Amino acid sequence: MAWSMEHLYAPRALKVQASAIREICKLIARPEIRSLAGGWPDPLTFPVEEIRDITVEILRTRPELALQYTSSEGLPQLREFLAQWIGRRDGVSCTAEHILITHGSAQGMELAAKVFIEPGDVAFVGLPSYFGGSGALKTFEAEVVGVPEDGDGMQPERLQEKIVAVRAQGKRPKLVYVIPDFQNPAGTTMPKERRKRLVELSVQHDLVIVEDNPYRDLRYSGESIPPIKAFDTAERVIYLRSFSKIFCPGLRLGFAVGHRDIIRRMVIARQFEDCCANALGQHILYEFCRRGLLDVQIEKNCVHYKKKRDVMLDSLDQHFPPQVHWNRPEGGFFVFVTLPASLDGEVLLQKAVERNVAFVAGAPFFEDGSGRNTLRLSFAQSELHDLEEAVAELGSILKACIGV
Amino acid sequence: MAWSMEHLYAPRALKVQASAIREICKLIARPEIRSLAGGWPDPLTFPVEEIRDITVEILRTRPELALQYTSSEGLPQLREFLAQWIGRRDGVSCTAEHILITHGSAQGMELAAKVFIEPGDVAFVGLPSYFGGSGALKTFEAEVVGVPEDGDGMQPERLQEKIVAVRAQGKRPKLVYVIPDFQNPAGTTMPKERRKRLVELSVQHDLVIVEDNPYRDLRYSGESIPPIKAFDTAERVIYLRSFSKIFCPGLRLGFAVGHRDIIRRMVIARQFEDCCANALGQHILYEFCRRGLLDVQIEKNCVHYKKKRDVMLDSLDQHFPPQVHWNRPEGGFFVFVTLPASLDGEVLLQKAVERNVAFVAGAPFFEDGSGRNTLRLSFAQSELHDLEEAVAELGSILKACIGV
Repeated sequence: MAWSMEHLYAPRALKVQASAIREICKLIARPEIRSLAGGWPDPLTFPVEEIRDITVEILRTRPELALQYTSSEGLPQLREFLAQWIGRRDGVSCTAEHILITHGSAQGMELAAKVFIEPGDVAFVGLPSYFGGSGALKTFEAEVVGVPEDGDGMQPERLQEKIVAVRAQGKRPKLVYVIPDFQNPAGTTMPKERRKRLVELSVQHDLVIVEDNPYRDLRYSGESIPPIKAFDTAERVIYLRSFSKIFCPGLRLGFAVGHRDIIRRMVIARQFEDCCANALGQHILYEFCRRGLLDVQIEKNCVHYKKKRDVMLDSLDQHFPPQVHWNRPEGGFFVFVTLPASLDGEVLLQKAVERNVAFVAGAPFFEDGSGRNTLRLSFAQSELHDLEEAVAELGSILKACIGV
Repeated sequence: MAWSMEHLYAPRALKVQASAIREICKLIARPEIRSLAGGWPDPLTFPVEEIRDITVEILRTRPELALQYTSSEGLPQLREFLAQWIGRRDGVSCTAEHILITHGSAQGMELAAKVFIEPGDVAFVGLPSYFGGSGALKTFEAEVVGVPEDGDGMQPERLQEKIVAVRAQGKRPKLVYVIPDFQNPAGTTMPKERRKRLVELSVQHDLVIVEDNPYRDLRYSGESIPPIKAFDTAERVIYLRSFSKIFCPGLRLGFAVGHRDIIRRMVIARQFEDCCANALGQHILYEFCRRGLLDVQIEKNCVHYKKKRDVMLDSLDQHFPPQVHWNRPEGGFFVFVTLPASLDGEVLLQKAVERNVAFVAGAPFFEDGSGRNTLRLSFAQSELHDLEEAVAELGSILKACIGV
């Protein structure tokens, strides 16, 4: 008899599909691939020497702490620093009590879903939206409903319509997942008025907002807008931040900011998940922050990625046919491309991989099954020369498809 | 109006209580406390210089990998090494495909529960048993049923009775959580015949076994017995291992071993949890293993902790009154103490903390509410002198309570 335990799996395990991005990352590990796919940061930005010096110092002066367990909330001194840092930088007033150190912002999302989502609860995400967020919500059997986005991100009026419609169906609207800055995959940034409006809707309709904001500090042009959390007078927003894009992903660190009771619930859930974040990473990060290097690092990264964004936008202007449209992001990693309706992103991807170019097709970002004619291009990871070549190659494939 | 989002929390978030150990760790952070409480390893065992040298080398030769994301399964070379290592060391035949690198064995438990547990499924744990395991199961709304243990660990015949009784109530027995070596908190080790019997029961009653084995390598006397996984011909066992006790907890690494389809499900769940384990830790650990240091480290740790165990057992013999009983563990970190039925471990703990001694009262380890007259003493963390003093202090409190 063939081995099978399928009948023993929980429904949640059968509902969740493998992440399209995590899967494609395995596929495109070939060195000859010029990747516009993953949202992985450029290793050239990693502060290697600083991390090395700091690690040597930490292991000389406090190995008994840096190699031990830490509290489930995270290192107190790191939480203190971050509370002040986002106060100063984001206008979010909070203390260490409102902060939980997570293994990436992904874990913040997962813990928020674990604490709030009951099977059948409705969670709203953008059309399009990062499927890591939707995936965590589906793990806990949320019904995920898409809300149309435009060039300014999620549309509050469309969200309100969906909330009302969902409630009319006897379902419980519970949570909104939103990426207001340099959205993944759309690259859009939400104006201040919409941010305020989302907070109003959360109060009016008794919702939780998860604000995922991993790219926020990587702004290359335009003016910074405070995060949704800064307008959150009712304390309904869980604000997720990551160090993967502004420092490095290899320490797997991010943090969640929320009302102390929500953070407390997330801490308890985390005690039975991974107990605590890795201590070595937390000590390295804290020392990096304490030395004043974080803001310096962010500035360096902005200079680095701005160049890449500009090269990609220039290359798109030069190589892509006029039937294809894309946005001009003010920050982050992504340009979002809309093809003529007759073209399919997945089919294009297959052709592109044959010519050693990779990207992520847009369809998996659309909960409603639309978006087949879209692509997400990341300018973060490839070298400038490869970026240009990859865009040129894609342009030539597109021209052939369209017949121009 | 006072802030409240209580009505929005999922039932799972309200069911799970904070971990008694994680909470006590905060309480006893005072330097004057002589702690017999946490299962935290002794920092004196941490291979600090090796980790420092390895980290410097890694950051010199491959920072672009060590500070980047990794695959959700974990570093391929580390998984290869571990497959061979447990083949050689534990008689568990497997390949890298059967291995998932986790953030501590805690995450392996959580992912197993996430993949298998539906609300209402019955999971069996020992009386007593580590509440980290039960907590993860309750997070997914398992009904957790205790199975009596004796000096040889969980009793298979009692487990069988419980399975039959549960099924007769129309419930679904799904999973057994068991710690066969140097059990936490009981310090017991399960004989080979019982291990085989558990595997038979899993086949007969269509169950999953989660074998949590973080202390396995720390054996100070007696003969090693293969893990339950070594007898798992039907591939129903998920075998969890940790590096926290044999290397250090600060990199937050462990691994799970199971049938490739189960591992695949756990990998997908992990993609929406923390994406991947921290790369820096994985690279450090792999290099530590590749240099042949892991087995050396285990031998050193055994010498170190054997001394501590012996001091604790000698001190107990010397200072504890004859009305009190305890076991003589062959490995691990814990001695389990049974007081006269009239005494309460929690009350004793309060008295002890007043005299700067801490331990963990036994009651939270008993799912059925029994065990109020038990204590878990850990000999892992305190220095030899403090161990002896703490036991003497506890002995004097006990004698006063009993009136001898």
